[in-house]
Amino acid sequence: MYLEKINDPEDVKKLDATGRQGLVDEIRAALLSRASKHGGHFGPNFGMVEATVALHTVFDSPHDHIVYDVSHQTYPHKMLTGRKEAFTDPEHYDDVSPYTDPDETPHDLFKIGHTSTSVSLALGLAKARDLRGGHENIIAVIGDGSMSGGEALEGLNVAGELDSNFIVVFNDNQRSIAENHGGMYDRFRELRESNGTAPNNLFKAMGLDYVYVNDGNDTETLIAAFKQVKDIDHPVVVHINTLKGKGYEPALKDEEAWHWHGPFDIATGQSLSDGPAPESYTNLAGEYLLKRAETDENLLVVASAVPFALGMSPERRKRMGKHYLDVGIAEETAVAIASGAAHAGAHVVWGSSTTFQQRVYDQLSQDLALNSNPAVIVGNSGSVWGMSDVTHASFWTIPMIANIPNITYLAPTNAEEYLAMLRWGLDQEKHPVFIQVPGGPVRHAKGPVRKSYDDLRSEVVRRGSKIAIFGLGSFFDMGEKTADILRESLGFEVTLVNPLFASGLDSGLLDNLAVNHDIFVTLEDGQLEGGWGQTLASYFGNSDKHVLNYGIKKDFYDRFEADKLLHENRFEPGLIVADIRAALRRCGN
Amino acid sequence: MYLEKINDPEDVKKLDATGRQGLVDEIRAALLSRASKHGGHFGPNFGMVEATVALHTVFDSPHDHIVYDVSHQTYPHKMLTGRKEAFTDPEHYDDVSPYTDPDETPHDLFKIGHTSTSVSLALGLAKARDLRGGHENIIAVIGDGSMSGGEALEGLNVAGELDSNFIVVFNDNQRSIAENHGGMYDRFRELRESNGTAPNNLFKAMGLDYVYVNDGNDTETLIAAFKQVKDIDHPVVVHINTLKGKGYEPALKDEEAWHWHGPFDIATGQSLSDGPAPESYTNLAGEYLLKRAETDENLLVVASAVPFALGMSPERRKRMGKHYLDVGIAEETAVAIASGAAHAGAHVVWGSSTTFQQRVYDQLSQDLALNSNPAVIVGNSGSVWGMSDVTHASFWTIPMIANIPNITYLAPTNAEEYLAMLRWGLDQEKHPVFIQVPGGPVRHAKGPVRKSYDDLRSEVVRRGSKIAIFGLGSFFDMGEKTADILRESLGFEVTLVNPLFASGLDSGLLDNLAVNHDIFVTLEDGQLEGGWGQTLASYFGNSDKHVLNYGIKKDFYDRFEADKLLHENRFEPGLIVADIRAALRRCGN
Repeated sequence: MYLEKINDPEDVKKLDATGRQGLVDEIRAALLSRASKHGGHFGPNFGMVEATVALHTVFDSPHDHIVYDVSHQTYPHKMLTGRKEAFTDPEHYDDVSPYTDPDETPHDLFKIGHTSTSVSLALGLAKARDLRGGHENIIAVIGDGSMSGGEALEGLNVAGELDSNFIVVFNDNQRSIAENHGGMYDRFRELRESNGTAPNNLFKAMGLDYVYVNDGNDTETLIAAFKQVKDIDHPVVVHINTLKGKGYEPALKDEEAWHWHGPFDIATGQSLSDGPAPESYTNLAGEYLLKRAETDENLLVVASAVPFALGMSPERRKRMGKHYLDVGIAEETAVAIASGAAHAGAHVVWGSSTTFQQRVYDQLSQDLALNSNPAVIVGNSGSVWGMSDVTHASFWTIPMIANIPNITYLAPTNAEEYLAMLRWGLDQEKHPVFIQVPGGPVRHAKGPVRKSYDDLRSEVVRRGSKIAIFGLGSFFDMGEKTADILRESLGFEVTLVNPLFASGLDSGLLDNLAVNHDIFVTLEDGQLEGGWGQTLASYFGNSDKHVLNYGIKKDFYDRFEADKLLHENRFEPGLIVADIRAALRRCGN
Repeated sequence: MYLEKINDPEDVKKLDATGRQGLVDEIRAALLSRASKHGGHFGPNFGMVEATVALHTVFDSPHDHIVYDVSHQTYPHKMLTGRKEAFTDPEHYDDVSPYTDPDETPHDLFKIGHTSTSVSLALGLAKARDLRGGHENIIAVIGDGSMSGGEALEGLNVAGELDSNFIVVFNDNQRSIAENHGGMYDRFRELRESNGTAPNNLFKAMGLDYVYVNDGNDTETLIAAFKQVKDIDHPVVVHINTLKGKGYEPALKDEEAWHWHGPFDIATGQSLSDGPAPESYTNLAGEYLLKRAETDENLLVVASAVPFALGMSPERRKRMGKHYLDVGIAEETAVAIASGAAHAGAHVVWGSSTTFQQRVYDQLSQDLALNSNPAVIVGNSGSVWGMSDVTHASFWTIPMIANIPNITYLAPTNAEEYLAMLRWGLDQEKHPVFIQVPGGPVRHAKGPVRKSYDDLRSEVVRRGSKIAIFGLGSFFDMGEKTADILRESLGFEVTLVNPLFASGLDSGLLDNLAVNHDIFVTLEDGQLEGGWGQTLASYFGNSDKHVLNYGIKKDFYDRFEADKLLHENRFEPGLIVADIRAALRRCGN
């Protein structure tokens, strides 16, 4: 009866303390109901309900600018800024992005899905305001593990020199996805335990003013604190101590499982999914690494707050002991540590989601590849069948990583190849190896797979003529299907290749195939521009060969359906066959 | 008489205090003599002489591992580890890399030319040591402005959780290339002024132990401090207060000019170069921006410790006032600030060396391009004619940046185009723009240049037939020369195109040229793999057109000569013409 009347932050300002408490309770009930049916980020939002109501009570959004980081804690903000139906009405659950999105409302400033950005983005707003002579408040909300990221720390240091209004709200819920990591978190604990008075305060050490709020889940206390800093003439950090998952007992008992959660039964907290989890590449990697740790004393598995990328469940992490290192949200140091440890003889693998690996182009190139240190990097979910939110979709590992000199980019097509490559990568001592985990459901090899990838040669799976199809990684299966259709319709066998790697070309094979093939077709799981297929097109550029490249056209795509996106790129067997037949006719066949 | 006997750190250990002072003086004299004749990084090395002698007196390199950051402060280290001739004998001045290089000696652990990496790389060494059960000391040296970089701050936080030996030597010389920037530097000053006792100590706030050494240029004091922490069983920071450029009066008076310096007269400090500095793109940009600041109240020029990338000399910086922001070594926050400020209506440009822009792939993609904020990014020295040390050479802006969706990558061919693009980029309000400053000496337009780049069309400079040459950016001139030779030798005019942009293709033009052209030739200033030419090769892949791509083959190249490297890639007019004539014959002409 409160939430239904909130169409805008102006409506929040009309409430008294009783009304605000009612609103808080209703927001939390709506979050719980939606989460139980729909799934989504859970804990981060439950902890931020009171702070969000307080922010919109004290500040005047969108005149005042509130930048959230990471924006998966913005469901309450969305409910107060004209988008409540997406949380109260099941028919509208998918109407809004799970992150902030300026296309939805002026109350959202940026599309943000990666962490540790709010302080720096908000600093830009503050600089523009100061040039213009404006007086609006600029508020950067940060928390949920983001503080350990380099971009956030750089931003705090720059903020320390600003001489105008700037408010950082540090949502200290004592957690990242997994537990937090790094020396700063012990100091934050000391600050919580001393009501903000402990020495060696990171924020003050960066030159910022500081306010501590011990009960970060009490709306009226937060309002008082925010009023205190509103219109302040210098940078200040408001450190609020909140409880991730507050208001739902099961979420408090297992914060990691409830950071993001699928549909569940509210009464018991039991998941509604049927039966056991499906087989996954991450889990297979976790099993392998745990087993390897028993005999390889030099094994080091590095995570950067995404332990599940290598199947490092809480149970496995415990059993890995000293062989496991989670650096928190801090991808740059993860790569440098991997490089250093590999240099000193450790068998190192760092795994993460490829969308977060965008943070480490320079470290992959300079700290790692230039130094030829034999660390293994595993990229997860860099696939059209991976995450589909525009902030997490990832089509760029080949343009970004395969084109860096001295990195061997491997593209396994199934579970057995993936594990063989992981084993070989950890055993070899020559150079860095990147492995792109395939997208889609787990596939298995039909026969034995290669054990060594020292000699980079692609694998001819079927030897035919005229047409050669190269199905890279996740797309080997589609290559196979396309080859089947062609054999059927043309009456002869076409060549099918599993390229195995994308950091170069098997020129020996290409020259050999050139003798009796006219058409070369590449299928790859990512963007066409800067991709592997274009390297092959260039190889045959000065020849009469025809090369057809399939991939995703360069663009940002938001919440796409993989099949539809592939269809739009003519990236499905029927359309590829049609293109090949047309090319055959043009080649004079 | 001391230095000549030093062939290894063991020889340093044999010296007494008098000998060490003699050695320090001789190192500094050698540095001065070499710098006056050869040029190179100056100030950073002069400040580190005593600390380097002390490190090699106390620790046992290479058993103990010393990682330097940024490694241009390692000349004294090189002199003590078997490479003194490169500093004492003019004939050997170029024998060693100006950075650490494990190919030279086991006393160098990594090739490092980018800042803020030592703590994280050394952490990797420490983790590997702990797995192995080793007991060597791991020492990370950091300073000279590197502390503000995200990778260093991430590393300190992770170090705070280590429970074994780890020593960070923080060389606080109170400078970056320009003055330091950020709130932390005021706190470092407080630490210096309080003999290390001031509260809000960044290192303690990261969970690290802390030791302060006020006279960081006194060898014996340093030795005592290093002995105190040798074999320590937990992480500690030794904060040493040093003087950049110590021992040479002119360098103390103008630390920025003497960070890196060309040959000079020792008595007066006067540069030995003849006459005024040659015309430069950076200077032209600086002039333009200073002039624009007079009328554009929303102009914001952002630097990240490389102010000269946009011609921001100390004098211009002062006159820019609030229109200039230097964030220090902190590229990630620079891009995010640019994005935020552009979102809020500022006309923003961030300029740096492209080799350092490798740090911001994710920020360019997520913080900036995904949000379509109209900031301008200027990349300097990303050219075969740019810096040639392997740690600074930069052939990757097209694979890295042009392939990011929603960034317009412009490639000016001369000064007038560069300035027109800079003006247009700052005026437009649609999307981010990257401008690749041309390499080589400044070239000027032969006629008027386009003012608007809203409509991305390439420019046909000469209309011919059969052969079309696309000379991108710096390589337009070579395209022109090649076209001249072809006209001469073939007896007909060939088409010459200035592509102007590399973030896509002018498909209208390509389709039009396809009517009466058989051969398409691309010249670009960077790596072939993932480059622009390959996109064009893919465009014509399924056709009878021949495409010849010229660029640099994927690899790391160290201290190369541009002409030689180009020759090895058949990237010079004579060889290109030979290839085209061969292709003409294969096309049946």
